[in-house]
Amino acid sequence: MIRAVNVFDFEAIARERMTPSSFDYYAGGAEDEVTLSENRDAFRRIALLPRVLVGADRVQTAVEVLGVSLACPVGLAPTALNKLAHADGELAAARAAGKAGTLMCCSTASSTSLEDVAAAAGGPLWFQLYVYRDREVTRDLVRRAELARCKAIVLTVDTPRLGRRERDARSGFSLPPDVSISNLERYGTPEALRWAQTSSFTEYVHKLFDPTLTWESVAWLKSITSLPLLIKGILSADDAALAIDHGASGIVVSNHGGRQLDGAMATIDALPAITARVAGRVPVFLDGGIRRGTDVFKALALGARAVFIGRAYLWGLAADGEAGVTRVLEMLRAELELTMALSGCQTVAAITPAHVSLR
Amino acid sequence: MIRAVNVFDFEAIARERMTPSSFDYYAGGAEDEVTLSENRDAFRRIALLPRVLVGADRVQTAVEVLGVSLACPVGLAPTALNKLAHADGELAAARAAGKAGTLMCCSTASSTSLEDVAAAAGGPLWFQLYVYRDREVTRDLVRRAELARCKAIVLTVDTPRLGRRERDARSGFSLPPDVSISNLERYGTPEALRWAQTSSFTEYVHKLFDPTLTWESVAWLKSITSLPLLIKGILSADDAALAIDHGASGIVVSNHGGRQLDGAMATIDALPAITARVAGRVPVFLDGGIRRGTDVFKALALGARAVFIGRAYLWGLAADGEAGVTRVLEMLRAELELTMALSGCQTVAAITPAHVSLR
Amino acid sequence: MIRAVNVFDFEAIARERMTPSSFDYYAGGAEDEVTLSENRDAFRRIALLPRVLVGADRVQTAVEVLGVSLACPVGLAPTALNKLAHADGELAAARAAGKAGTLMCCSTASSTSLEDVAAAAGGPLWFQLYVYRDREVTRDLVRRAELARCKAIVLTVDTPRLGRRERDARSGFSLPPDVSISNLERYGTPEALRWAQTSSFTEYVHKLFDPTLTWESVAWLKSITSLPLLIKGILSADDAALAIDHGASGIVVSNHGGRQLDGAMATIDALPAITARVAGRVPVFLDGGIRRGTDVFKALALGARAVFIGRAYLWGLAADGEAGVTRVLEMLRAELELTMALSGCQTVAAITPAHVSLR
Amino acid sequence: MIRAVNVFDFEAIARERMTPSSFDYYAGGAEDEVTLSENRDAFRRIALLPRVLVGADRVQTAVEVLGVSLACPVGLAPTALNKLAHADGELAAARAAGKAGTLMCCSTASSTSLEDVAAAAGGPLWFQLYVYRDREVTRDLVRRAELARCKAIVLTVDTPRLGRRERDARSGFSLPPDVSISNLERYGTPEALRWAQTSSFTEYVHKLFDPTLTWESVAWLKSITSLPLLIKGILSADDAALAIDHGASGIVVSNHGGRQLDGAMATIDALPAITARVAGRVPVFLDGGIRRGTDVFKALALGARAVFIGRAYLWGLAADGEAGVTRVLEMLRAELELTMALSGCQTVAAITPAHVSLR
Repeated sequence: MIRAVNVFDFEAIARERMTPSSFDYYAGGAEDEVTLSENRDAFRRIALLPRVLVGADRVQTAVEVLGVSLACPVGLAPTALNKLAHADGELAAARAAGKAGTLMCCSTASSTSLEDVAAAAGGPLWFQLYVYRDREVTRDLVRRAELARCKAIVLTVDTPRLGRRERDARSGFSLPPDVSISNLERYGTPEALRWAQTSSFTEYVHKLFDPTLTWESVAWLKSITSLPLLIKGILSADDAALAIDHGASGIVVSNHGGRQLDGAMATIDALPAITARVAGRVPVFLDGGIRRGTDVFKALALGARAVFIGRAYLWGLAADGEAGVTRVLEMLRAELELTMALSGCQTVAAITPAHVSLR
Repeated sequence: MIRAVNVFDFEAIARERMTPSSFDYYAGGAEDEVTLSENRDAFRRIALLPRVLVGADRVQTAVEVLGVSLACPVGLAPTALNKLAHADGELAAARAAGKAGTLMCCSTASSTSLEDVAAAAGGPLWFQLYVYRDREVTRDLVRRAELARCKAIVLTVDTPRLGRRERDARSGFSLPPDVSISNLERYGTPEALRWAQTSSFTEYVHKLFDPTLTWESVAWLKSITSLPLLIKGILSADDAALAIDHGASGIVVSNHGGRQLDGAMATIDALPAITARVAGRVPVFLDGGIRRGTDVFKALALGARAVFIGRAYLWGLAADGEAGVTRVLEMLRAELELTMALSGCQTVAAITPAHVSLR
Repeated sequence: MIRAVNVFDFEAIARERMTPSSFDYYAGGAEDEVTLSENRDAFRRIALLPRVLVGADRVQTAVEVLGVSLACPVGLAPTALNKLAHADGELAAARAAGKAGTLMCCSTASSTSLEDVAAAAGGPLWFQLYVYRDREVTRDLVRRAELARCKAIVLTVDTPRLGRRERDARSGFSLPPDVSISNLERYGTPEALRWAQTSSFTEYVHKLFDPTLTWESVAWLKSITSLPLLIKGILSADDAALAIDHGASGIVVSNHGGRQLDGAMATIDALPAITARVAGRVPVFLDGGIRRGTDVFKALALGARAVFIGRAYLWGLAADGEAGVTRVLEMLRAELELTMALSGCQTVAAITPAHVSLR
Repeated sequence: MIRAVNVFDFEAIARERMTPSSFDYYAGGAEDEVTLSENRDAFRRIALLPRVLVGADRVQTAVEVLGVSLACPVGLAPTALNKLAHADGELAAARAAGKAGTLMCCSTASSTSLEDVAAAAGGPLWFQLYVYRDREVTRDLVRRAELARCKAIVLTVDTPRLGRRERDARSGFSLPPDVSISNLERYGTPEALRWAQTSSFTEYVHKLFDPTLTWESVAWLKSITSLPLLIKGILSADDAALAIDHGASGIVVSNHGGRQLDGAMATIDALPAITARVAGRVPVFLDGGIRRGTDVFKALALGARAVFIGRAYLWGLAADGEAGVTRVLEMLRAELELTMALSGCQTVAAITPAHVSLR
């Protein structure tokens, strides 16, 4: 078995096993990577204030998300092109999530078709959606997600354009021949095919993604599906309120892992104002910087229903395929359970803002 | 004589004399060791505001603790398995504490039986207690502490489970054949014996310690002993109030030296809210990060009656046995006395919050 | 083409191409270079709070400045002696600014005469003015700026004496024989000529610049020209108010790139109080530390109408002449446009203080 | 001439010219040298807010101190044993101070008799006093200071005991045979003589200095001299008020250059509360960390009448004797004058709290 004590060990192993440019494609952030590092540093600035003698024998990490019970409030975030990490790609991730009793959010830009991912998934699957200029493509993607029994659509709203990921520009990162955006192949756009052979994902996004996306687009999306719609990529409390006004079933506080707008606020710093404004009307989720069970605990304490991990599971995937993802999920679950036990929280519901101290 | 100017020098010598894994067992903290370093950094953030011309000729470091007069408000914290540091183990520590006119708190997990420690102790001895699933074991430990004339029971409440000490996982730390948890040998549990030959202290704790421990357990403990009961491992003012409500005779503000919940607040940062809530009803103690007389002074200024040192005395023990512990205690006493003289405090009681400035 | 992903790359190339002493003349700041680094660090302390789903398809970076429309709110700051960077000097800069649809502010201390710069400039030109002890020289410079169709006079007020630039003292920096302050040659002062052969720019400034400059001098300047007069080098809100009282048409918040008073507040830290006091009566500009489109965005969010870049364009000039300046301007414009798109701002006017968060 | 651009250069030269242990005796601070570095860091945290267009042609650094006009508000602090730096010792310092038109405060522990220092001094001389257990020694020292026409007595109150200077303990620092505490030789105490041959300055202080010093001692001192009495070593506003109540003619905010109580507040951080409490009744001075004219300016802005430099002049003395001290004083004067010109302050009186910004 891979020798790894924590998620950071998996990252070190992934770095060894991947090509430098693929590793950098995952590891890097936008421009000066200020937000990338802030996502981590901000967690460190939050201290824990544990309570004692409340019993730590029946700690339960289970949580209910949109009517589904998860064993642990840590899901797999939508990340592109998992085959860059391991030949089993998203299939390995989906199987690991299922065995861990948690959910996966499949990316539009997966390197495995969402139908295949759905077939492999043992647990609930969400589908992350980019809205395309060609609304028929978008409509078809939504229909396919419904047919594949996805439980929710997660609309990413922080990518009207792609952020400047300078590591990729320096490395000349391009897709290996055996990796492509599988979900889009059937639409046969010349652009999609061409991109498979060139490096310009930025150009691809600019050509295909719809930059005119507005709150009205959310209404349109809601009109073509009965699935719950979550809005991912919110950092402002005002936008959280607008999302609810426009019928969102949930909000994902995210800065796209520091890959879009460099300098954007760390997600855990943005969370408190958002959960205050949302006031429990819909569940709030968070991704960005989660590497430890204590990070999960801090997000829950500040009002998140659950969190998503991106790079953390990709390092496990790169290191050891499905087994690696399984171990990363189990590490975080065990660390969260321990954090809860040591903080005096038998259940996720017992975790409150009083358990943390913002400097 | 060992050449050492301050406690940090003793740490450097201990590092040379101990096996790397034993040194790391003492030196390390939980997970990313954030709390371990915060315990030190937080002291550094506090500035001293000395007063002048109040006379510095009769500085007295003496303090009364639970009716006993100590020469200095620096006691020895309960630390496990002192024979890892030096063959004389807890006996050397107890003798040094007695000669220094201060108290020692013997750990349940001592590598010398509490009876032998008590026989060696020249000064007051407290007994640190973990509550076992087998309440008869617990009851017997308390009875033995009473028979050994311990002056107080110190119930550790921050260890319903053991923290993740990753240095130990990496080093494969296990007990040398000549070191064991002496106090528990008579109970002959297979688990205890097995642990002596394996590395899984975590497993041991999970098997033997009672994770259902609650405030009701405190009531039970009080029912089986007339000794004063202190609660150790409190960081929250609410828990300090609960401890008093449940009859505690004192509170030890502690995060277990950063070895349990990583990210937990530094003890000196947690102290002011706790002493404010306790409002003098019971004495408040602190451990974690004490390496200088100025650290002791800062803790006293923020309301602690006395402090405990763990690693600081272990480095002295590892470097030079009883003589090393004696010198560490004398260093801290002399540094505290000097700090008092230079701050314009003739007595410990004269030290007030006005002598420090929190940034 | 020069391989450069961002402005920092151009700086690295410039460092290779320039003599160390000329590079240091540009790169250095006063004394301990505290303000030099604070100008950058202060931007980093400001987080962005992007808004979503407002449409990012028609992002317009255009801005109106003193009645002139610029394609982008990033102009070229007045910097001395551009021929130190490249033989084409200010001509290359002026052409690049014109092609980019933005303005250049020509320095009194340019190494090309303002008439030649004006002839090369395709866009609006401003003229930066130092007031000389000999008011006839000053009057003539203003008249020449008018004849060259400059759109504004920018009076620098932070240089009654020259700051201590210790890198220059250490390097023995002096002008190469082919570089001189072209604008002043016609006045044939012995001092000016002598300086061309010696290193003491400080002495030169002290001999020629008028240290008695006061607000009354502003009134005199306004009496001899009908051009708009901007005051450059203001960090205090009180001075901003005085500038308006004395008829200034605009204010440039500047600490001279950290080259004058070391320890002076970072410009982006000084900006909010100034824009609050100015309250829209005149446009406020900023220079100092701009290296990214996000920096431009932050300045606009805190009330600046536009920003100026000094070193940033000099690195492009040193690396690749006019083409280098063009690319630096285009980098910043593209980064700003992307920042606006990702922040939910279609126009510059849509950028507000709510888009940033001061720690 | 010694090549030095700033005071830090002189420190580097001094390090080369002195024995390591003598250099460390000057350079070091108490214990972990937290206060030593904070004295510098705290200046860096203060930003300057310069004003413009107020005229910079007639900047005057002159200041009046206790009725005497100084060319510059930077005096020489009392420092022990200047012959460790240079054979000319205090005589060189006194001559340099006089030529610079500023004052020197001669230390009780000078390596030249105060009478000889007074004869060399071209400007005003103060005498720093430690109170001895033997009050007749103290009385005689005061009388000698009067006869030597010293203008004030500066009572040091932060040294009832000597701080722990661990560099000296490590280096085994002891006095060279040709350096002694000249002022005390005539009293012929065995202790003083013995110390000249041993390393224990700490022991010496403990044996000779009077640790019972209280505010009553101040009254006694005032009864035996008509010279103005200043109290040096105050960090608390309450003590500043007490000093005035007891007749002090001035206060020196000092932490003994970080050599006494480690962790004591940086002097520039302590200054504002003290000047607020003193409210102009007596002049307030400051030492600790002054290396730049901007540091002097910041202290004046926060209410100091003048500052004293210790290590800064010692580095000049070690590098180049009297000429080195002269250059250090001139550097600081020129830097202060430049800072005033660039901040819009023609006179020292024009420097106000509005010229700085505390973070």
